[in-house]
Parts: sequence; C-alpha cells; structure tokens
Amino acid sequence: MPIFKPIQESEAKGKVKEIYDEIKTTRQITEVPNFWKMLANDPNELDRTWNSLKDIMKKGALDPVTKELIYVAVSITNSCEYCIKSHSAAAKKKGASDEMLKEMFAVVGLANKNNKLVDSYQVEVDDIYK
Amino acid sequence: MPIFKPIQESEAKGKVKEIYDEIKTTRQITEVPNFWKMLANDPNELDRTWNSLKDIMKKGALDPVTKELIYVAVSITNSCEYCIKSHSAAAKKKGASDEMLKEMFAVVGLANKNNKLVDSYQVEVDDIYK
Amino acid sequence: MPIFKPIQESEAKGKVKEIYDEIKTTRQITEVPNFWKMLANDPNELDRTWNSLKDIMKKGALDPVTKELIYVAVSITNSCEYCIKSHSAAAKKKGASDEMLKEMFAVVGLANKNNKLVDSYQVEVDDIYK
Amino acid sequence: MPIFKPIQESEAKGKVKEIYDEIKTTRQITEVPNFWKMLANDPNELDRTWNSLKDIMKKGALDPVTKELIYVAVSITNSCEYCIKSHSAAAKKKGASDEMLKEMFAVVGLANKNNKLVDSYQVEVDDIYK
Amino acid sequence: MPIFKPIQESEAKGKVKEIYDEIKTTRQITEVPNFWKMLANDPNELDRTWNSLKDIMKKGALDPVTKELIYVAVSITNSCEYCIKSHSAAAKKKGASDEMLKEMFAVVGLANKNNKLVDSYQVEVDDIYK
Amino acid sequence: MPIFKPIQESEAKGKVKEIYDEIKTTRQITEVPNFWKMLANDPNELDRTWNSLKDIMKKGALDPVTKELIYVAVSITNSCEYCIKSHSAAAKKKGASDEMLKEMFAVVGLANKNNKLVDSYQVEVDDIYK
Repeated sequence: MPIFKPIQESEAKGKVKEIYDEIKTTRQITEVPNFWKMLANDPNELDRTWNSLKDIMKKGALDPVTKELIYVAVSITNSCEYCIKSHSAAAKKKGASDEMLKEMFAVVGLANKNNKLVDSYQVEVDDIYK
Repeated sequence: MPIFKPIQESEAKGKVKEIYDEIKTTRQITEVPNFWKMLANDPNELDRTWNSLKDIMKKGALDPVTKELIYVAVSITNSCEYCIKSHSAAAKKKGASDEMLKEMFAVVGLANKNNKLVDSYQVEVDDIYK
Repeated sequence: MPIFKPIQESEAKGKVKEIYDEIKTTRQITEVPNFWKMLANDPNELDRTWNSLKDIMKKGALDPVTKELIYVAVSITNSCEYCIKSHSAAAKKKGASDEMLKEMFAVVGLANKNNKLVDSYQVEVDDIYK
Repeated sequence: MPIFKPIQESEAKGKVKEIYDEIKTTRQITEVPNFWKMLANDPNELDRTWNSLKDIMKKGALDPVTKELIYVAVSITNSCEYCIKSHSAAAKKKGASDEMLKEMFAVVGLANKNNKLVDSYQVEVDDIYK
Repeated sequence: MPIFKPIQESEAKGKVKEIYDEIKTTRQITEVPNFWKMLANDPNELDRTWNSLKDIMKKGALDPVTKELIYVAVSITNSCEYCIKSHSAAAKKKGASDEMLKEMFAVVGLANKNNKLVDSYQVEVDDIYK
Repeated sequence: MPIFKPIQESEAKGKVKEIYDEIKTTRQITEVPNFWKMLANDPNELDRTWNSLKDIMKKGALDPVTKELIYVAVSITNSCEYCIKSHSAAAKKKGASDEMLKEMFAVVGLANKNNKLVDSYQVEVDDIYK
C-alpha cells in the first residue's frame, strides 16, 4: 500500500511522456527505470531532476565514469540501495572496471572511518588550511 | 580542555617517530598535520590508519586525483570540515583543477538529493538490477 | 532469528496493556502497530516514548498534519522505511493531501542538496545571522 | 585558504548578476547571502539551485512557512549550521512564531529518536503499510 | 543573533528552577550547562529530556561509564561536537580512563568503515541471522 | 544481478583461504559469514579489515562485550541492518544479556535525540569544555 504508484509508460502524457522518451534515448534503454516512474507523480520535480542530472553527469572536466563513481560513493555513504545498484550498473556500462569499483569502495570505507576519527579526537584544522 | 593533546614531533618516539618521518617524506611536507598528531595518542591506530591510507590512496585502476575526489565527496556527505579542507588541498596538489572540484560538488549535491527522493517515493529496485 | 520478539496483545500486562489500550483508543485502530509491540520489551522505554509522542504530536502552535509532515521529512533524511510508511499514512489520515506530501518531498530533496553544497563550498555564516 | 572565494556583487556579470538581482528583489534584502556568492563559482549550479528553490519554496498545497520549517528540520537532521540559521530566520520572516519553531524542534528530536529505536529493534513493517 | 537565548539561572522559575537545582545536585556541579539552559525555552521538552536522561543513564545492567561511552560513540557518528565534549568529560568523571576512550574511538572508526563496506558490496544477511 | 559475488570457501586460495580459516577458528564457527566472503573480492581489503577487527575488538581496557555493544550502537545510528544483526549476535555470544542490549538501545535513542536538540538550539560549548 505505497502512497504513490509508478506512472507507467502507457499512462504518460505531455511533458512526462517527452521526458520518458528522452530518458530511453539518452540511456539507450527500452524501459524507463522505477525512479523516474515514481518521480513522474510530480512532473515539475521529474523535469528539474532529469534536466539537472543530464547536465551534471555529462562529460566535462571530469569524465562520465568518474562522475558515476562519485555518485555511487555518496550513495554508499547514505546507504541508498537503489542508487548504489542503479549507478554501479551505469558506471560499468560507461566503462568502469570491477577493479575501479573495488578501489572506490576501499576509499569510501577509509574516508568514512577517518571522518569519524577526526570527530573522535576533535582534530583542529591545520593553520595552512585555514 | 580537549581530552587528548597532539603528540608534537619533538615528543615522538619509536613507531610514532618513524611514521611521522614517513608522512613528511611521502607527502613532501615539512610539518606533520594535526590529524596524525592526534591519532598518535593511539600508536596502533596511527599505524593501521597510515598504512591503510598509503595503500588505498596510491595509483591503481583509479588515479590518485580521482581517489582524492571520492574521498572529499564522502567527507562532504559526512560534513567533516577538516577532511574536506585537507583532502581538497591534496586533490589540488595531485593535479585536480578547480573545474574538477566544482563538477564533483555538483554530483555530490545531486546524489544527496536523489538518494532522498528514492526514500521519499520508496522506489523499488528495478528487475534488471535485482 | 531476531534478538527480540514483539509482545503480542494477548501477552500484554500491567503498564504495557494500559498503553496498548490507550494507543488503540487514541489512534482509533484495532491492532497495536509493530513499533509499540517491539518497544514493549522495555516497558519504561515504551512508556516514555508513547507519552512523549502523544504530547509532542498533538495540536499546538503547529497543527497535527504539519507535525506529521515534519516527522516524515526527518525519517526520509534518515532513510527509516518503517517510519516513512507509518507516518505518511498517519499524515494522510489526519488530512494531508497527496499534493502536500509531494511538495514536502521536493523540499526534503532540495534541503538535502543545499545542505551538502554548503559543506562543499564551506560557506561562512553571514554576519546578519551571527 | 579556502579553495573558492565568494563572487562579490561588484564582480558579478551576465547570468550571475541577473540572479543576484533577482535574489535581492524576491527576498527584499540588500545584500546577497554567502551561499549564493559561493555557488556563483559555478554559474550553472547557481542557476539550477536558485530556480529550483524559487519554484519549490513558493506557496502551493503547503504554505511557505511550513516549507521553511520542513527545510530547517532536514537541516537539523544533517547538522548544517548555515542552513539552520538562515532558514530559521527565513521562517520567522515569513511568519513562523517562536512556539512553532520550538514545536518543530521537539518533533525533530522525537523522530530522530524513534527512527533509531526502529533500527534497534529491527521493527518489521506492519501488514497494513505493505 | 541566535533565535533563542539561554534561560539564565537567575531567570529560572517554577518547574525550570526545580530542574536546574536537580541537575546541579545530581551532577555535583555549580553551574547549569548550556544544553539545559537552551532547552529551558521549552519547559516541557526540558522536563521530558532531563527525566529520560536521568532514568536511562543510571546504573542498570550496564554501568554508567559504559553508557557514557555508548553515548559518545553515537555523538561521534553524528558529529555532534557539544555532545562529544560534554559526554567525554562525563565519562571521565564517572571513571573512564584515557585508554577506554581511545579503544572506543577505534571501535567507532572500525564500525563506521565496515557499515559502509556492507553497503558497498550489498552483503546479504546470513541465514543464521535471519 | 549484484556486481560482485561472494567468494565461496571452496574457491578460496592463498591469503584469502588463510584468513577464512582464521575467521572460523577465532570465532568458533563452521561457515565464513557473507561479509568476509564479499570482501574477499578485494584480498587486500579483506586482510586489512580482518586484522584491524581482530586487533581492535579484543580485550583491552574495555572488555569484548562492551566493544560489541559500542559497535552495534554505531551500526544502529548508521542503520546498517547486517551489522546490527551480526554484531548483536556476537555481543550475546560473548555474554551480553538482553537487558544490556535494551539499555544500550535506550542510550542510542536518547543520544540521537539530544544530538539533534543541540543542533536545533545551536547550543554553544560551555567554557569548561573549551
């Protein structure tokens, strides 16, 4: 009994339908993922989120694989299972190797530990970083 | 009145002194950062943490700049000011441009938003990721 | 093999039974939710938590719907599935519309993003807020 | 020695200048807050964030005061000092009373506690919410 | 320009004054800490919080030192500086040694790392724990 | 379709096999838990993590039960279901009573609430803790 239901592709109209089509074309996939089908309950949020994602995740000073790895690193830190699964798959599709994923996992583990050691010992910012 | 005080370089002995020297040599810096001086209150933790970091952050399938950017992305998600400042500086020293940092910030913002939209709408994992 | 088991209504005695009855009467429900059945393993915690909740969530300067929306917003930020589901349902029962829930979701997404952009850029508090 | 510096109003050009002017007009303030001055280092992110915020925080099914309270509740849960301070002030400016803020604080405290009690006892979702 | 101001001891009346006196007697201190002075803006929340804390932190199956260490471990994980400082001091006053604090810090670091490695590799719960 | 698969005991070789054997001997268990089988995809991370855990969780100034309780308290705060389940079981195996677990839960709930009340009221650190 979820509060909201996914907006299926057959129900999509207007702006939602256009975005669904663009998602499938851009990603070269045949079915719209559940994330977008749920967001479509709020067409403005769907629009904002899809357009931000398209713009932010594209090649820039960082390549798309690095951006996906950073996205997954944040999602692990926030324990978002859906996001970890879908963006790990996206990272692989864009060229990330298993070794790259495993090294990213190790960095995420290390950073989470060290972040808390800094809080434990109440480490002061060094003068050179002030 | 912090519970623990930094172990200054002049006080360092044995394993702590060796690690301090290695930190300065590896990083090409002239003073040991406060993080390590505080961890030195627990020499075994200093040893484990330094050796893990040295091993995890070195060049592998991912280059050191990408690893630093991932480290900062996690630190932002955890709001660790010390870690953001020191590892942003490390990223720049290893070759990250301002554009790379800003693009990473945008990915971190987006991922944090989308992680929570997934929770808001209780999005189910797509069959293809199960 | 969970460590603790729910205390079923048929097993409830004394203070636990009284609270179970009060929960059902106040909420106009016929079965005690699992949260309270699990908390009943620690009758003092059940007592404290139920009485705090009853007092805090009642109409005051804020109406009960607004309070439930705030409760859900926190639960999304903490990724507590049980809490999101049960308190979204409570919000709807008390009068929240689907539009209200969706607007709350958008605010939660935005705030989570902006909280992290503040950390990314290490934004200083403006003088007027100091 | 922060990595980025605020873009002062006197330095703002083009899209950044337009957004600065719009922020001051919309908010009826005479100086652009530091958050926007820092985001201006990435004009596209400034644009996306300002336009999202303007759209999401405006009156809808929820009034602007409720939206600000939800924003602050999320910011407390994420411990974002800047966000707590600036959006508490915004809430008050839009009409929130001290009583409303204090009741919101109590809900945030309660929800954070209960979110963790759910995890402690590994509470299963009730059948009626499945 | 904080929204709320501490309620000084000279201003305290009725229930607030009684609780202030009880805090000083129980803790054997001569001045009420800022946490309670701020909570006193909401006398009911002060009452609930003080009485919960007094009941939860007292000797039971766990001794008061262990409870303080657990309290600090949570506060580190949440990066609450005030809570880390005040409850580390409380732990020491109740008998915690520096070695105990440092070992707790190491456990907190390790658990934070391993929690995220579990998310990274999406580890399934073993049958024996189901 | 998880990205990585557990390395079964029958597939383990070299360092991984040695660590698997040591885990079973030290823990007096007949099957390697899934956490270690997944970490074995990165033998260096398996090595680091197992050796850190063995060293950190052993009897020191704190007894192993207290360390397990602290580990679970952190895992609850991070909502790591796997970690809560496996380390609650470990705590019980090492001698923790149900009462001890329930008191720990209450402390965790209280600390999470108070951590957020500190942020709500922006409580300043008392002079005696500075």
